[in-house]
Amino acid sequence: MSYNTFGQLFRVTTWGESHGPAIGCVVDGCPPRLALTEADIQPFLDKRKPGQSAFTTQRKEPDQVRILSGVFEGQTTGTPISLMIENTDQRSRDYGDIARTYRPGHADLTYDLKYGIRDYRGGGRSSARETACRVAAGAVARKILGEGVRIRAALVQLGPHDIDRTRWDWEEVNRNPFFCPDAGVVAEWEEYLAGIRKAGSSIGAVIEVVAEGVPAGLGAPVYGKLDSDLAAALMSINAVKGVEIGDGFASASLTGQENADPLYMRDGKLTFGANHAGGILGGISSGQPIVARFAVKPTSSMLTPVPSITTDGKETKVITKGRHDPCVGIRAVPVGEAMMACVLADHLMRHRAQVS
Amino acid sequence: MSYNTFGQLFRVTTWGESHGPAIGCVVDGCPPRLALTEADIQPFLDKRKPGQSAFTTQRKEPDQVRILSGVFEGQTTGTPISLMIENTDQRSRDYGDIARTYRPGHADLTYDLKYGIRDYRGGGRSSARETACRVAAGAVARKILGEGVRIRAALVQLGPHDIDRTRWDWEEVNRNPFFCPDAGVVAEWEEYLAGIRKAGSSIGAVIEVVAEGVPAGLGAPVYGKLDSDLAAALMSINAVKGVEIGDGFASASLTGQENADPLYMRDGKLTFGANHAGGILGGISSGQPIVARFAVKPTSSMLTPVPSITTDGKETKVITKGRHDPCVGIRAVPVGEAMMACVLADHLMRHRAQVS
Amino acid sequence: MSYNTFGQLFRVTTWGESHGPAIGCVVDGCPPRLALTEADIQPFLDKRKPGQSAFTTQRKEPDQVRILSGVFEGQTTGTPISLMIENTDQRSRDYGDIARTYRPGHADLTYDLKYGIRDYRGGGRSSARETACRVAAGAVARKILGEGVRIRAALVQLGPHDIDRTRWDWEEVNRNPFFCPDAGVVAEWEEYLAGIRKAGSSIGAVIEVVAEGVPAGLGAPVYGKLDSDLAAALMSINAVKGVEIGDGFASASLTGQENADPLYMRDGKLTFGANHAGGILGGISSGQPIVARFAVKPTSSMLTPVPSITTDGKETKVITKGRHDPCVGIRAVPVGEAMMACVLADHLMRHRAQVS
Amino acid sequence: MSYNTFGQLFRVTTWGESHGPAIGCVVDGCPPRLALTEADIQPFLDKRKPGQSAFTTQRKEPDQVRILSGVFEGQTTGTPISLMIENTDQRSRDYGDIARTYRPGHADLTYDLKYGIRDYRGGGRSSARETACRVAAGAVARKILGEGVRIRAALVQLGPHDIDRTRWDWEEVNRNPFFCPDAGVVAEWEEYLAGIRKAGSSIGAVIEVVAEGVPAGLGAPVYGKLDSDLAAALMSINAVKGVEIGDGFASASLTGQENADPLYMRDGKLTFGANHAGGILGGISSGQPIVARFAVKPTSSMLTPVPSITTDGKETKVITKGRHDPCVGIRAVPVGEAMMACVLADHLMRHRAQVS
Repeated sequence: MSYNTFGQLFRVTTWGESHGPAIGCVVDGCPPRLALTEADIQPFLDKRKPGQSAFTTQRKEPDQVRILSGVFEGQTTGTPISLMIENTDQRSRDYGDIARTYRPGHADLTYDLKYGIRDYRGGGRSSARETACRVAAGAVARKILGEGVRIRAALVQLGPHDIDRTRWDWEEVNRNPFFCPDAGVVAEWEEYLAGIRKAGSSIGAVIEVVAEGVPAGLGAPVYGKLDSDLAAALMSINAVKGVEIGDGFASASLTGQENADPLYMRDGKLTFGANHAGGILGGISSGQPIVARFAVKPTSSMLTPVPSITTDGKETKVITKGRHDPCVGIRAVPVGEAMMACVLADHLMRHRAQVS
Repeated sequence: MSYNTFGQLFRVTTWGESHGPAIGCVVDGCPPRLALTEADIQPFLDKRKPGQSAFTTQRKEPDQVRILSGVFEGQTTGTPISLMIENTDQRSRDYGDIARTYRPGHADLTYDLKYGIRDYRGGGRSSARETACRVAAGAVARKILGEGVRIRAALVQLGPHDIDRTRWDWEEVNRNPFFCPDAGVVAEWEEYLAGIRKAGSSIGAVIEVVAEGVPAGLGAPVYGKLDSDLAAALMSINAVKGVEIGDGFASASLTGQENADPLYMRDGKLTFGANHAGGILGGISSGQPIVARFAVKPTSSMLTPVPSITTDGKETKVITKGRHDPCVGIRAVPVGEAMMACVLADHLMRHRAQVS
Repeated sequence: MSYNTFGQLFRVTTWGESHGPAIGCVVDGCPPRLALTEADIQPFLDKRKPGQSAFTTQRKEPDQVRILSGVFEGQTTGTPISLMIENTDQRSRDYGDIARTYRPGHADLTYDLKYGIRDYRGGGRSSARETACRVAAGAVARKILGEGVRIRAALVQLGPHDIDRTRWDWEEVNRNPFFCPDAGVVAEWEEYLAGIRKAGSSIGAVIEVVAEGVPAGLGAPVYGKLDSDLAAALMSINAVKGVEIGDGFASASLTGQENADPLYMRDGKLTFGANHAGGILGGISSGQPIVARFAVKPTSSMLTPVPSITTDGKETKVITKGRHDPCVGIRAVPVGEAMMACVLADHLMRHRAQVS
Repeated sequence: MSYNTFGQLFRVTTWGESHGPAIGCVVDGCPPRLALTEADIQPFLDKRKPGQSAFTTQRKEPDQVRILSGVFEGQTTGTPISLMIENTDQRSRDYGDIARTYRPGHADLTYDLKYGIRDYRGGGRSSARETACRVAAGAVARKILGEGVRIRAALVQLGPHDIDRTRWDWEEVNRNPFFCPDAGVVAEWEEYLAGIRKAGSSIGAVIEVVAEGVPAGLGAPVYGKLDSDLAAALMSINAVKGVEIGDGFASASLTGQENADPLYMRDGKLTFGANHAGGILGGISSGQPIVARFAVKPTSSMLTPVPSITTDGKETKVITKGRHDPCVGIRAVPVGEAMMACVLADHLMRHRAQVS
């Protein structure tokens, strides 16, 4: 069985394979009378789009989105919004080999173990191409959140290389091919990743997503907590192996005093002295910025041979010749933003429902 | 709004406050004709129960579970199983102060921001006492999984102190007050945590959960992936700030070759050369052990004063006098096991449904 | 598998068997800060309670409800509300026979076919005793709807005997043992039903539920339509075999002109010339009264023998000796009201969420 | 808010407006390795397609379905199946009037009351055109059910005109423009409906759906009962005002003896003496044919003027000039079959999940 819908009130259902005729999603539950056209969605897709630098796959997809329903005369009608993106550059011949072998660490194997069949062309349903639909849905979610909520993400670690957080500059994020907020490491990263690519290898990364302006009170304890839903949303992105909120794993080493975010009154308003909690307490937003991080493993599609088996159970070595990202974490940056937007939009609507 | 149900086919709905008359849960969707009595559930509750060592809260709760429905003559009937645990040792007077102040880092504040009301006694609904219900439900989930699936958890980090993984011994876990698998660190940990407690402080921890014998094919891509559901389940536990699968955040630093789990044929069977993936590929179990870790922050209930505010907006300092765990991570060990069991039972049932 | 939860935002999960220690429900998603005590719920349970006239089962159950969670100092807290009713008068010995035979037309058979096990005592989970939980949840739902929404039901057909709708008087409903709105038929009905009872037989009925003051706009097309959710809710009541909205089946015989509800402006306000639609158009409430009817079949528990089989496949004749209602439709009246209240409360909350 | 998904394991999400570029659905949860091509779906769409006789709308739509995902080399892959039908014959100019007036009895009004905006062209989302997607999904559901389950529907009442059930002939259903199983009434019905059409009026109908070969045990008490889910599914079809199972409303007039379906053993097998219950007991299938009926009201789109109001609150008279069915019940016949198929497929999968 598959399950391809997320959200409770703001619900997104995605469909499509990497090399099928198209991919798309149905965004259901969107409130009526929000201004929405393709032009509101396209910029986010362009940001995620492949083939934009030497560090992402050379597949050329325009990723042009079409709104097929749910919008009338430039406004949402409250009915389901169907979004479709046609696949145009499917070079399926590249994938002949993976029809008969399993890439170690890839979903090839488990799709076959589960379903007994798989569309091997470009990874089929397990391809990160699906994330284009998330990005499109995220653009709709941002409309619900309004301009007061600002969601941004950045690559904060490339392989073993960290950024210097004191140099964090959001403006810088859109100026380099890594979505990196620290201009000081970009040259080094370029050299490093070029080396990885030349070596026919791949590397992991860590992305940080920050949402500012989120009202307090979002989250539905105890099984629809905001952090719980964020964890599920981020972990569902291809190749993600870890999710943190606020200080995350580092908080395990802290004492209660070190971890406490003191409360003050400043100009008659509740003010926090720190944000170790990442804006979420007891599964509910506190009004502070929501901070989440997720780790992306290195892709298993690479030119370096790895011991593997064929679909009929013979040992072999696998290399993957197609067009791939040496660091899939880079293009995960806009996807992380989109998942944050979708989760927040859903919880904003859920919170509105409780008014008594 | 609250949301207190998890699972799709194996569904658990919990209810109850720390100092109300009782807590409990309804376990719905359980298959019929499984042998089940209170005696199958109680040992897991006893493991989580407070007051068992100097390192957990001194609240004395027998945590005696009663089955109120869904079982007939010692067998499940396929109808909802209602489980109830009476609260017996509620010393609400301890909590007088927190009625009028917010513990920094605690859900006190956000429950008030969201609901405009909170049952402050012992933390009310936000208390970790709710996790007793998860443990009870987990015992039912284990019945569905059967004896072939073995789920165990251990504390692998106490504050800044790691274990030595080469000394890992599952037998040791039940012999020390930390559920620690490394006998070599227990003495040191005892001294360290005694110091934390004496200082009126608290400390975080990391727990690792391992499920062996899990069949390949569990998980429902792309929004009901096994790792995605595990992330949500573990992140929903009180005080958890991070979740990892397999190598988790460490995989961000690895190259594709380092991270690949090579595949071999040994004695005619698919065999893995490593388990960096933690038993999940593309959101689907591979047949390898499922490995998850989660980080627990230090509790904000401690004897050390922290700047805070009162419910009517005046600055103050807060200390929490009640009975608390200096490291809430310890009692989270059986809770982590229970969440793993519930998620796996749900996905085992979902997988059975797909047979065509 | 069983599925014992209904509602999307206002969610009710019921549990319990006819002759177990207790029955109950968890009401989740209720907004905070609504005044609620047992005294708000008990009157509705008293109305449904058995043993109140010669025409309902002689089982004596006080049906005393206890609130176990979710309410603090007389107000809802927004957390799950656990309600429990203890079973006190279980005379299980009456049901010895049905352990080994199937009542034709009863769920005895299908529970065994599905689950391979059943709690036969008093019908176990399939007993209409479960509907007490619905009535309790309905009382909470009414709190959400507020005093502006008025939900009432009445028995409009007893066996082949209709009421005269021109004599409809809501006041009369609570004055006779049938919840009948037409005083003119009560004497006749008493005689008729006494005859049915003496003959060891049973009879069906039709109930009408009317909700006034429902705001326009409730309902979530096209698969969460208000009438669709009402149909599911009413059909889920024990022994119900049909559901109608507005003119229902009669509308099949009408022409478009006869069926149209003309629209006028009266004193500057939208006014309807008729209500054939029963207050729902396109699955959305129009502001007119919501009118639903449901048909209840005669119970299969009766003293008249019917050909049947034993659990080990031998032919036999079945009579049911326990204590039963000759017309289960009577006590379904408050249950119908409760289901209407729950569905409306859920949709009121869903509608609030859409505000943009 | 809208809600456009139905089913729990076999889930269908539909989208699209009458006069948008296309309509479609995503069928999620379908098991893998079922043979499926467009040719499996098209015949069912052709049956529902407009413009096939003088008695259905003259809009000409080829209703050609395309499979965009979820199928690989002629087999389902277990991933979401996206189906799309392009709209080709949108004569929107016909609908100019209804942009500014409300058809009494139509969803025009309530969509505006709920959403504050509506796509008025051809009824937008509230158009019965959406049911083409249900029919497409139903064709997929039939694949899951397999050839052993046979689902057929027929028109059993046209306005006030019943059929003679003793002449019921399933073969006849596909030979006349009414899907009527009684050849003896066809001529009379043709004359009658021609009269209705000439008069610029419309008329209601009743449809009966029968599913044979359904295994015992399907249904998930007490809120996922098979009859409850069927009631919701059928009531969600446009213009439906009533749903019955088995004897339905007629059972209200029966005594327990009359309504009982006696049980016998014949050739060592459980055998029923009658089927008043319509194949469902306690919400669970008994192995007998499932029998459901639903009532369709006359469409409010007709050439006869009815008092109404304009969108800016002025009184007027409305006639609807576009192309409409004089009896929308006729084309609801294949839709009823499809909903039955979807509900049964979902419950078959849910039942498989419970095996312990």
